[in-house]
Amino acid sequence: MEVIRALPFRPRSLHPGKTIGFVPTMGYLHEGHLSLLRRARAENDVVVLSIFVNPLQFGPNEDFDKYPRDEERDLAMAREAGVDYVFLPDARVMYPRPILTTVKVSGITERMCGASRPGHFEGVATVVLKLFNIVQPDRAYFGLKDLQQVAVVQRMVEDLNVPVDIVPCPTVREADGLALSSRNVYLSAEERRQALVLSESLRLAQGWMMEDDSLTVSELRERIERHLSTAPMAQIDYVEVTVFPELRQLAPDETVGRLRAGSQLVIALAVRFGRTRLIDNALIPKKGE
Amino acid sequence: MEVIRALPFRPRSLHPGKTIGFVPTMGYLHEGHLSLLRRARAENDVVVLSIFVNPLQFGPNEDFDKYPRDEERDLAMAREAGVDYVFLPDARVMYPRPILTTVKVSGITERMCGASRPGHFEGVATVVLKLFNIVQPDRAYFGLKDLQQVAVVQRMVEDLNVPVDIVPCPTVREADGLALSSRNVYLSAEERRQALVLSESLRLAQGWMMEDDSLTVSELRERIERHLSTAPMAQIDYVEVTVFPELRQLAPDETVGRLRAGSQLVIALAVRFGRTRLIDNALIPKKGE
Repeated sequence: MEVIRALPFRPRSLHPGKTIGFVPTMGYLHEGHLSLLRRARAENDVVVLSIFVNPLQFGPNEDFDKYPRDEERDLAMAREAGVDYVFLPDARVMYPRPILTTVKVSGITERMCGASRPGHFEGVATVVLKLFNIVQPDRAYFGLKDLQQVAVVQRMVEDLNVPVDIVPCPTVREADGLALSSRNVYLSAEERRQALVLSESLRLAQGWMMEDDSLTVSELRERIERHLSTAPMAQIDYVEVTVFPELRQLAPDETVGRLRAGSQLVIALAVRFGRTRLIDNALIPKKGE
Repeated sequence: MEVIRALPFRPRSLHPGKTIGFVPTMGYLHEGHLSLLRRARAENDVVVLSIFVNPLQFGPNEDFDKYPRDEERDLAMAREAGVDYVFLPDARVMYPRPILTTVKVSGITERMCGASRPGHFEGVATVVLKLFNIVQPDRAYFGLKDLQQVAVVQRMVEDLNVPVDIVPCPTVREADGLALSSRNVYLSAEERRQALVLSESLRLAQGWMMEDDSLTVSELRERIERHLSTAPMAQIDYVEVTVFPELRQLAPDETVGRLRAGSQLVIALAVRFGRTRLIDNALIPKKGE
């Protein structure tokens, strides 16, 4: 395994005719990242992992400075997962001078995390496009835990004819249901316990939808909010019922039965526990799929 | 020579290990485009020409509908110039559904044509990036007549790590000095005669700068405006004295002598004759270069 900290880095020239699988991350790797790396390893000749905590996608009051980092552990895990190259640039490598170019995906970014974190998805789209241009992978692997990110990257790739296949991969969870996230390390023991309310709500919501086709979008949201509120420390950022990958606003009186006939429904949550913001979601397949 | 009207078009897969030179145009080819094609032909194994009148870079009151087109003549000229592939998509190929993704280069686009044509350079940057992703060239050739476009594309490529070398090429002129442009065909005989005032002003301005290092930016602009006004049909859009490639606003009392010591100066003009808007510019090398 080779660790690359500077440009130029041109894996495609080093391996002509080989397929390249790419997993872009912010490091502090967990089992979710490893599932992406394993899939990339199985499907490609060469596997590239990038680790870069991208300042461009953090707001001024967000956790850029305290975002967890553990390079040594990350490199050991990457080696274990059979990674060929770890691209580990610092900010001066990625942004040698102030970046004037912004990549913006409108529509899809207006709601959910896009509304709570202004500028976040411009930062994501811009850095992902930069990394794609550097690594030039055949396939790139993204976890569906960051569902809006997957939708944004997929749409950017289609709109700009970027020659990369985006492979969305299922969310990996702890045994008790908590979605894995590098930010889980911020949680106190009590917050960690109460954070289960996210995955519980999603499970309950799927049950309610199966039972009752006439349930409306607004009723479903209210029930989820009610369940989230059973955790005293939970501060709801958003509860969204929408369709994937458009993520558009739905009429509150639309019924889940009608929606599920034509679209892939999504329930997406963002909830704060103290200073930690957690997200989770469930993708509901179209009826008959 | 092959004419490609649909996607996928993957010249890189068709010619592994070969270099690809790319000339993106809006068609209605003239000697300026041919100079780009000849240079691309000389420097690469494979030459790709694209012809696409990009609706995204025209404002609502601009000349998209009447922009001159002559496919048959363009194809004959391309064949003559030794082009291997002409990529000739229509709007449904380039924009199969509404595009949500925009590429914006700030700073450089605020003045000159960016100020006169809001949204123009977002349209240019977005379509150029799409074309780069489709063609995946090693080198792309752009005429310096569209100097701000060259600066925008160059900056986008650097900011986003796009693996393409941008090759700026000198403006080609008629024998009497008029810069070649597909839009020259709009000019009446009298407008064509008076349009010479652009290249004349640039020649005169270079003389004034050589003679007098203490000439200020504002004096130089005034003298140019005065000369442009000797053409009764000329309506000045802008007269800009700035530095390349930053294209930033200069203090009006800076002297050309001081500026030329450290920077490449640019004089850039946009002038309307009736409903036709012409641009031209002169790049002044740094002192001692």
